[in-house]
Amino acid sequence: MGAKRIIVIGGSAAGPKAASKARRMDENAEITIFQKASDLSMASCGYPYYVGGFFDDRSQLLCSPAGVVRDAKFFWNAKKINTKVLTEVTRIDRKQKKVEFTDLTTGKTGRAAYDKLVIATGSNARKPPVPGVELEGITTLQSLSDADYLRKIKDEGVIKKAVVIGGGLIGIETLEALHLAGIHITLIELLPQLLTFLDKHMARLVEKYVQTKVNVILQNGVASFLGENGVLKAVKLQDGTEIPCDLAVVAIGVTPNNKLAKEAGLAIGETGGILVDEYMQTTDPDIYAIGDCVEIPHLITHKPVHAPFGDLANLQGRVAGENLISGNVVKFPGTIQTGICKLFDYGVGSTGLSEQNALKLGYTDIETVVNASLDKPGFMNGNLLITKLIADKRSGKILGAQVIGAGDVSKQVAIWAMAIKGQFRVDDMVNADLPYAPPFSLAIDHSIATAHIMQNKLKGLFKDISAEQLKDKLKNKEPMLLLDVRNPNEFEEVRLGIGERLIPLGQLRNRLGEMPEDKTREIIAWCKISLRGYEAALILQANGYTNVKVLEGGIAAWPWSREK
Amino acid sequence: MGAKRIIVIGGSAAGPKAASKARRMDENAEITIFQKASDLSMASCGYPYYVGGFFDDRSQLLCSPAGVVRDAKFFWNAKKINTKVLTEVTRIDRKQKKVEFTDLTTGKTGRAAYDKLVIATGSNARKPPVPGVELEGITTLQSLSDADYLRKIKDEGVIKKAVVIGGGLIGIETLEALHLAGIHITLIELLPQLLTFLDKHMARLVEKYVQTKVNVILQNGVASFLGENGVLKAVKLQDGTEIPCDLAVVAIGVTPNNKLAKEAGLAIGETGGILVDEYMQTTDPDIYAIGDCVEIPHLITHKPVHAPFGDLANLQGRVAGENLISGNVVKFPGTIQTGICKLFDYGVGSTGLSEQNALKLGYTDIETVVNASLDKPGFMNGNLLITKLIADKRSGKILGAQVIGAGDVSKQVAIWAMAIKGQFRVDDMVNADLPYAPPFSLAIDHSIATAHIMQNKLKGLFKDISAEQLKDKLKNKEPMLLLDVRNPNEFEEVRLGIGERLIPLGQLRNRLGEMPEDKTREIIAWCKISLRGYEAALILQANGYTNVKVLEGGIAAWPWSREK
Repeated sequence: MGAKRIIVIGGSAAGPKAASKARRMDENAEITIFQKASDLSMASCGYPYYVGGFFDDRSQLLCSPAGVVRDAKFFWNAKKINTKVLTEVTRIDRKQKKVEFTDLTTGKTGRAAYDKLVIATGSNARKPPVPGVELEGITTLQSLSDADYLRKIKDEGVIKKAVVIGGGLIGIETLEALHLAGIHITLIELLPQLLTFLDKHMARLVEKYVQTKVNVILQNGVASFLGENGVLKAVKLQDGTEIPCDLAVVAIGVTPNNKLAKEAGLAIGETGGILVDEYMQTTDPDIYAIGDCVEIPHLITHKPVHAPFGDLANLQGRVAGENLISGNVVKFPGTIQTGICKLFDYGVGSTGLSEQNALKLGYTDIETVVNASLDKPGFMNGNLLITKLIADKRSGKILGAQVIGAGDVSKQVAIWAMAIKGQFRVDDMVNADLPYAPPFSLAIDHSIATAHIMQNKLKGLFKDISAEQLKDKLKNKEPMLLLDVRNPNEFEEVRLGIGERLIPLGQLRNRLGEMPEDKTREIIAWCKISLRGYEAALILQANGYTNVKVLEGGIAAWPWSREK
Repeated sequence: MGAKRIIVIGGSAAGPKAASKARRMDENAEITIFQKASDLSMASCGYPYYVGGFFDDRSQLLCSPAGVVRDAKFFWNAKKINTKVLTEVTRIDRKQKKVEFTDLTTGKTGRAAYDKLVIATGSNARKPPVPGVELEGITTLQSLSDADYLRKIKDEGVIKKAVVIGGGLIGIETLEALHLAGIHITLIELLPQLLTFLDKHMARLVEKYVQTKVNVILQNGVASFLGENGVLKAVKLQDGTEIPCDLAVVAIGVTPNNKLAKEAGLAIGETGGILVDEYMQTTDPDIYAIGDCVEIPHLITHKPVHAPFGDLANLQGRVAGENLISGNVVKFPGTIQTGICKLFDYGVGSTGLSEQNALKLGYTDIETVVNASLDKPGFMNGNLLITKLIADKRSGKILGAQVIGAGDVSKQVAIWAMAIKGQFRVDDMVNADLPYAPPFSLAIDHSIATAHIMQNKLKGLFKDISAEQLKDKLKNKEPMLLLDVRNPNEFEEVRLGIGERLIPLGQLRNRLGEMPEDKTREIIAWCKISLRGYEAALILQANGYTNVKVLEGGIAAWPWSREK
């Protein structure tokens, strides 16, 4: 038998990774990558930062760690991998084990034979099916040419108003990039919240922050794009509002590009992603599929999900690259949908299940807490972190975590991702041994303190109430005592202003006489982050008050305006 | 029965934590903290940063998160906890369940009865038993008064030369603080390396960095302190060298302060720490002990260790505080000795076992790898990380990790700490789902890439050689081909200069004719970080060369000078 012939369709992230790993496993295989675009191995997650001007040298998006552009010559010389760019694979002939392709420059077609095939065709950006969507000035931020287009707009500095459609990860990253380009932005989101991987309450905190930078419109979609002479002039919303703009970036999600696979008769999963097993093998044993075009299992729910993340694409490429040479020897287990994005000075991240998703999936017996604290001591200029943790009530198993704030979000999300991957229960986390020194964390790390709060709640030591629940109670004018237990100077500086009474924690034991005579009356206590709120609740409970609640995350996690 | 009487000896970190937790569990208990020093709840890990001028307001070391100084009034008002500062407990009378104490201001003595007692007496800083140790100008950095003394020196700006004795965590932190105070430093360490929680090779990389800031002398101890009129003038070393200086900071470690416990007949462990069980209970069921005065189990070796870390002290305080109220309901499992320190622009951290320690403890069947890479993409201004990972060869279980560099060390150490706590095998780590976006990490996180290298090595895909082993081979003039596979421009910029030949990876397949005729001749390949070195090794192996090795961590991890 001669050298193994390997064809990879797709040259962005997963494809080149699979090809490179295959080469490392077999020096003699004949490996060819077909790539429809003109570039290879693009760091597509870096596009927003190129557009936003974090760096100016476009070739950095295409460089190896050693600073060499990964072009056809690089792939041949360093990796002995053939690459055919600007070449579209139009059909997979599984019977003959060949692919048909078209050279997009010359229009010539051809066929190439494979022993093993890898499909890494990525995803397609959704576009709203509304009038005017073909106007000049409307783009996505998915391809390098999209990035080039937007970077040119930044450099020219002519366009002053833009609309970003879609409040997901890409929309948020695009928004930052364009804002840094000096463009006035309106963000449109069809749903009642941004970033649906967050629970509503957490998303609202992000929204509050975003609104300090750009205009945000929720629960409103695009009805049409309005133009003159083929050029975008405004976006018309479903409620009739017209927003004048010269640029619209559409970021309403992506769908798996399953066309070739579907036409070749490979099984497609319920999410639209190509069906693969844990070896990244499709229903044809000679064909593997990886990256944004596949669906993979969620490690908690065991249900298939479409998880178009650059890191997973790379990991899947490594698995497929080894398996197609060595037989199915390594597995890709799945995802817990860990994600993060930068939003000006904030990090916003999540791993595992949100409360909303958990409830939707039938996890009814769950517990949640919100913890707000600095990431480092105040004397080391610590920044705020707000974490929402979700755990299974009976087993104590950690199901998910969301973290936002100007603090070290990335580390927190990584810690929880490891906890979920390791199937930690809350009790495993309360005495975790994490790296502590004041330049890096609090003595009790924010993640561990979050686990402490959850442990206390699971033990029934206290009850809490979310900001949203409290807002509802206020609306319904429910009789309750609202208790801010901070110091008077803190109260002067900022307060919720919802009819609360100030009794500093240090005075509470002496001022119990001011509490309601009816000991079953609801009392809601808080402080800046609700550590003192918790202590106040314990004091009141010990004195016979039976209906005391702590406001989750205190004033720090209050997502509405506050009195100053 | 009346209110439970709880006495806590020690008011720094663990003690107040236990007292506060006990209060939260029981509003009616009578709780008293005895504290020998004048302050309470000092953030002692923050002393070096106060000395170094990271912040100027000393009271921040004593503040609650809300910015209130935790003095006696605070403890009484907010927590209903009695505190007796400047009061030394001189004896524990276990029979009568009383402590005897002396008011250090008035000299008056007294007795107080307890139902439950907590010993949180901390540790004592070691001092070298040499002549002159009582001279003025010699200090430790253990107490707040030490910090005050050193901060005064910084503010006065008179002292220009200091010696720091001890290259452990505290020595390193002190060194940074004094350097920032504009003082010229010489660091003395008795052992052949700094930071013994690191393996020698990793420590040498730190040493190389430290030497760009201060003078480092290894394998030399203090013979005596020389003075004039009772004031320090020089440090005399064991080899006779005299180092003129006006200040010497001794940081040669701490020993558990077990005096009271020992005199009371409580069992003391083999490390000198008070013996406690997983409930933090001593051999007397009415006495708990926590913090730097105890010994705790190592979670990997199951052997007792003295682990004087501020985070563990706090966690133990929480456990003891709950147990002494509720009966023994919560456990403190032990430590994996996770630690980190800041060193100018570097982070230096470790968790689990080092290779040296593992070998000492009889783990002979281990595998190690070194990975050097950026923490984030180059276009996001990523910084270097160097990780050494230690795993059990047969089970693949992760035993330890050491991380150093200007990159995000804290997150990396946290990830490995979670992996070890979760008993991850290397295979569990290779497809971890960590938060990825270019502002935060590489597409394949540095930790995951480190696991990939380990997996490849455990599979026997390649062999590597440490910088030290290579240095030895060079000394012995062993016949070998040294191969740098980077690009010519990289080679021009910096190279090892040890007789290597440059063959860029992209040319290697065409220049195999330049390889030794004897295919069993040893070939050692590297690049900047040894990713290309690995690829070169695979090419050579595929072409029949049987003795190819990759230099661990490449040029980035070479701890000696390089040619420029």
